[in-house]
Amino acid sequence: MTLADQPPAAALVFQTLLQHGPLSRAEIGRRTGLTPGAVTKVATPLMADGWITEVGRPATEGASGRPATLIAVRAERALFAGVKVTGEELIGVLADLTARPLATGRVLLDSRDVGTVVLAIAGLVDELRTAGGMAQSDALHGIGVTISGDVDSRLGTVQYSPFLDWRRVPLAQLVESAAGAPTVIENDVRALTVAEQWFGAGAGLSTFALVTVGAGIGAGLSIGGRVVSGAHGVAGEVGHLPVSGVERVCTCGNTGCVEAVASTHAITEQARQATGNARLTMDEAVRLAHAGDPAVRAVFAGAGRAVGLALACVANLIGPERIIISGEGVASYDLFADHIRQSFVDHAFGAAVDCDLVVRPLPFEEWARGGAAVAAQRVFAPAK
Amino acid sequence: MTLADQPPAAALVFQTLLQHGPLSRAEIGRRTGLTPGAVTKVATPLMADGWITEVGRPATEGASGRPATLIAVRAERALFAGVKVTGEELIGVLADLTARPLATGRVLLDSRDVGTVVLAIAGLVDELRTAGGMAQSDALHGIGVTISGDVDSRLGTVQYSPFLDWRRVPLAQLVESAAGAPTVIENDVRALTVAEQWFGAGAGLSTFALVTVGAGIGAGLSIGGRVVSGAHGVAGEVGHLPVSGVERVCTCGNTGCVEAVASTHAITEQARQATGNARLTMDEAVRLAHAGDPAVRAVFAGAGRAVGLALACVANLIGPERIIISGEGVASYDLFADHIRQSFVDHAFGAAVDCDLVVRPLPFEEWARGGAAVAAQRVFAPAK
Ligand SMILES: [Zn+2]
Ligand SMILES: [Zn+2]
Repeated sequence: MTLADQPPAAALVFQTLLQHGPLSRAEIGRRTGLTPGAVTKVATPLMADGWITEVGRPATEGASGRPATLIAVRAERALFAGVKVTGEELIGVLADLTARPLATGRVLLDSRDVGTVVLAIAGLVDELRTAGGMAQSDALHGIGVTISGDVDSRLGTVQYSPFLDWRRVPLAQLVESAAGAPTVIENDVRALTVAEQWFGAGAGLSTFALVTVGAGIGAGLSIGGRVVSGAHGVAGEVGHLPVSGVERVCTCGNTGCVEAVASTHAITEQARQATGNARLTMDEAVRLAHAGDPAVRAVFAGAGRAVGLALACVANLIGPERIIISGEGVASYDLFADHIRQSFVDHAFGAAVDCDLVVRPLPFEEWARGGAAVAAQRVFAPAK
Repeated sequence: MTLADQPPAAALVFQTLLQHGPLSRAEIGRRTGLTPGAVTKVATPLMADGWITEVGRPATEGASGRPATLIAVRAERALFAGVKVTGEELIGVLADLTARPLATGRVLLDSRDVGTVVLAIAGLVDELRTAGGMAQSDALHGIGVTISGDVDSRLGTVQYSPFLDWRRVPLAQLVESAAGAPTVIENDVRALTVAEQWFGAGAGLSTFALVTVGAGIGAGLSIGGRVVSGAHGVAGEVGHLPVSGVERVCTCGNTGCVEAVASTHAITEQARQATGNARLTMDEAVRLAHAGDPAVRAVFAGAGRAVGLALACVANLIGPERIIISGEGVASYDLFADHIRQSFVDHAFGAAVDCDLVVRPLPFEEWARGGAAVAAQRVFAPAK
């Protein structure tokens, strides 16, 4: 049995328990709008098949005397591997139904060749199984692979990955064959947004944005509980909003993009021009800025202003409750935090300025966990 | 009985019939996922209360012989008034359940005083009733009033209307008392977006944007079938995206906004500067541009480029299937159409350029019809 065979009410009950933890039948009814009879009808087969279970009585007893029995998800009922693919390495996590990590691991990539990467993913998944104490006979319920670029999760195809230089790679099927478990793929920022929505800084919010700043600048938009994917596969491209007012050409070929002044590469290039040192690295630029070099500090300030303009665009257009800022760029966040915030405040329209800006350093293991979360979501919300 | 008292499946069947016209029971089942038994169970009370009815056999008979009976919404079962409020006049429409217009009317406003406007709305609604042939004893099912600015439709309060200079006006309740029918209010662009989604250029699209260009520049975003309203009441503010790269100050107090170069007022002001004629009107600016005045043509070109940048932001962020361009500005659209399109193409990211741009001149009566549509929606989807 899979949950996908169950009626929609079963998915609703299951999701409610996943998001809110153990609940009494009455509380499940209140949150889902189902009658007590319907909750019991739905819960019985889920319990028989081990997806949910009754747990001990609640810590605080009700005023009415006998405490109600609580129902909880059996997190160990299904295990998932999440793998984030970068141009240099794979980062993996083994997680349970609630996306709790049981084991993590990393593997350097020798090559960006599709066959090599697929075998490396399968090898990493094997390592995670062993590290997580799974027996040979234990089946992995699903694998979620995440990757930056244009990913069509319905087709299971990486349409274009600039970092790997891949075009139209049927990655889901390749990994599924090599690793022997049902596999889904997703854009890495969207997967991280799903994870944040489920059990991170986006939990309980109807609308939020996750903006990642680093080698690329992207965003996941969660609107009304769903992560926006765009009619043509493009959405959340904050890095390519034409707000900078600067004529630097972006990697996408357009001018005026946020990435053209605020990506790691763009900051390094501008710092090289500012210092006249053509071999300056990003780390050295950060050191110079921390040491007070005014020209390099100005480069970070310009990057911060462009990111702030992008955040104002997000706030003015979709009005999120919160914008979470993450990505490798957050490591040197002190160098542009003030400029981001000031430029956001200067350009947010009216009450949009009330949008909460939160900085969250999320290691790549959290991104990999996003892959596990996307795979786990398929259990109760199969792709259309 | 109201539809709101019916089970969710009833609303689903009713909405399906509203959107797709007459359908057989089998077709309703296919589109809603309900079993034949459930469709019949839901349809019976709706039919008894006159919301739906059986209609003649379909024009083309099925291969299997006897054609199926079709079920249709009884459009005349409930009538609605929609009123759009501008700074100068009211535009009203009387419409049936399918938002088909039965009568229209306009009233000039003597004053922007709240009491005067409320009485004028009630008077216009009365005129519409008469013009539509309603008897004194016929009840209007609902009124939908739309207005530009920050409108909290849940509270029924106009938080801020720049054109009327209103703040925190409980308009829904005031109109309800004066006109004697349940009243909802909504931001005018959002209401027009609802109308376009339901029976306009957005019908059948999962994600689209409606951008209006004129005295103000705004947008309604329909994502996954719902019009985005923003956590803090702000959403779709394309007019205040900081993309212009120009330091003109906007009416909102910020710099670099699209409205600061592309609203009717901004175009007029820039044309005055360009010509040295401090009394130039918008109409005269349009005539000069049509006559080939290069300085005035450059003003329209700059406005077009700013609007194109805003459309690229919308496409790169939410990835709509289509962007509908409307508003009074569309009347002189030929003066900036090329610049809008070129700047959109130059700044759309990857496949976002495939987003369809459609120009649709929508008279204010269509905007008023948006109010009727919002009121009609409450019949089967009451506000939470
Ligand atoms: Zn770009
Ligand atoms: Zn503005």
